[in-house]
Amino acid sequence: MSAITADVFNDLLAEKLPMGVALGIRALSMGKGTARLVMPFGPHLTRPVDVVCGPALMTLADVALYAAVLSEIGLVEMAVTSNLNISFLRKAERCDVIAEASLLKLGRRLAMGAVELIAAGSDDLVAHVTATYAIP
Amino acid sequence: MSAITADVFNDLLAEKLPMGVALGIRALSMGKGTARLVMPFGPHLTRPVDVVCGPALMTLADVALYAAVLSEIGLVEMAVTSNLNISFLRKAERCDVIAEASLLKLGRRLAMGAVELIAAGSDDLVAHVTATYAIP
Amino acid sequence: MSAITADVFNDLLAEKLPMGVALGIRALSMGKGTARLVMPFGPHLTRPVDVVCGPALMTLADVALYAAVLSEIGLVEMAVTSNLNISFLRKAERCDVIAEASLLKLGRRLAMGAVELIAAGSDDLVAHVTATYAIP
Amino acid sequence: MSAITADVFNDLLAEKLPMGVALGIRALSMGKGTARLVMPFGPHLTRPVDVVCGPALMTLADVALYAAVLSEIGLVEMAVTSNLNISFLRKAERCDVIAEASLLKLGRRLAMGAVELIAAGSDDLVAHVTATYAIP
Repeated sequence: MSAITADVFNDLLAEKLPMGVALGIRALSMGKGTARLVMPFGPHLTRPVDVVCGPALMTLADVALYAAVLSEIGLVEMAVTSNLNISFLRKAERCDVIAEASLLKLGRRLAMGAVELIAAGSDDLVAHVTATYAIP
Repeated sequence: MSAITADVFNDLLAEKLPMGVALGIRALSMGKGTARLVMPFGPHLTRPVDVVCGPALMTLADVALYAAVLSEIGLVEMAVTSNLNISFLRKAERCDVIAEASLLKLGRRLAMGAVELIAAGSDDLVAHVTATYAIP
Repeated sequence: MSAITADVFNDLLAEKLPMGVALGIRALSMGKGTARLVMPFGPHLTRPVDVVCGPALMTLADVALYAAVLSEIGLVEMAVTSNLNISFLRKAERCDVIAEASLLKLGRRLAMGAVELIAAGSDDLVAHVTATYAIP
Repeated sequence: MSAITADVFNDLLAEKLPMGVALGIRALSMGKGTARLVMPFGPHLTRPVDVVCGPALMTLADVALYAAVLSEIGLVEMAVTSNLNISFLRKAERCDVIAEASLLKLGRRLAMGAVELIAAGSDDLVAHVTATYAIP
């Protein structure tokens, strides 16, 4: 079971991560070491030509892995990303984007996980992300 | 000499990349294969505890490499990031962030470059980024 | 079904990739877009202190994704890695290492995939790799 | 000044890293946080079609950053790579390859650095690498 609920995580976002709020990112569900989030489409996310921009996708992935880390260690706000690698695979055209994050390793000092970003309502993989978190 | 001026790039941002606008990112100068940008500090960029959040830094880096690519190939809006890797090195505490981007390779189909993100008014390297762009 | 058999891939390795031969890497099975390989433990693979060294793991991962790419496109020798990212998760202590590679995207010009490296006889994830291949 | 000489590092390679020996990798010079290494060309390094294979380049880069880390912290054999990202930029055709490694950050627990791989006798950048090391 997740150490915190999706609601608790969404409250943290609302209070402490204005960029997540600006993009409308929110957690849908959290398990132990996993998190599912959504970023609803809107014109504020676009880039030429009318697809969801890379920075919005990177933001969603980073927040999703933050959620997956907190699902294991609880509300440790100061867990910070130390490395993130993203491969953009398909355009996300005017659609909500779903993030499925899961941890691959949880050590005392480092956590590492992967995120799949998927165009909502399809199986299309928009981007694949791996990242490492430093745990204080 | 850059294929486009910093002003032309800033106009493109203003019209086509709302996330860049929301973060106040703008180009300061552009050379052939290089670009220098700034992201002014503001509370909308923060994460716990009061440092510039990773997604804002990734956005700045991605926009900076986009500028460096366009400095070589001109206003090709559809150049898109295919891969980005960022290492976060030091916290950026309540400060403007400068991006120094330069291309390491410009092929017909792919460009690859590196970005250093620096806390303004210091030599502190906040993050190091490499990324690949697909050229249509 | 794979475009080539594991035997055909192993013949290619034997003839054209001396580093793979030196490390004893061989394909066990191949599917459409997937490949399973093994690297048997030996003292030539070690680093301080007596664990499988990072370069051996990177070699295995790179060869495994090459196999997964060829399982889709056939014997196109000139497919080349353009980017590879590896996260080392656990030490591989004096053990054979298994690579499970699968493609996440196959485009006309680029393929992208992931590899899990696992200590043989366990479920321990030794490393996670993503890589992009350029297809000629 | 480097905490260890290139000779001391080469002795470490000879005794403890057989893969480095097999590829003929050796340090040419070391400074504080920097290292310059060479990998002489030979048929054991090739891949189709007669260029230096990716795994050999990754091995050289990894060893070069190991040298740069030890140039700062001395003979700490157990420093291990935690993440490595490589972008392959140009083919290295039947040539020696030079690695120029330098640290971008040295923390208590993590070091991060970059390596440029260059075709000997030219300015051609063959690959660009960033990596993170965990310090015990």
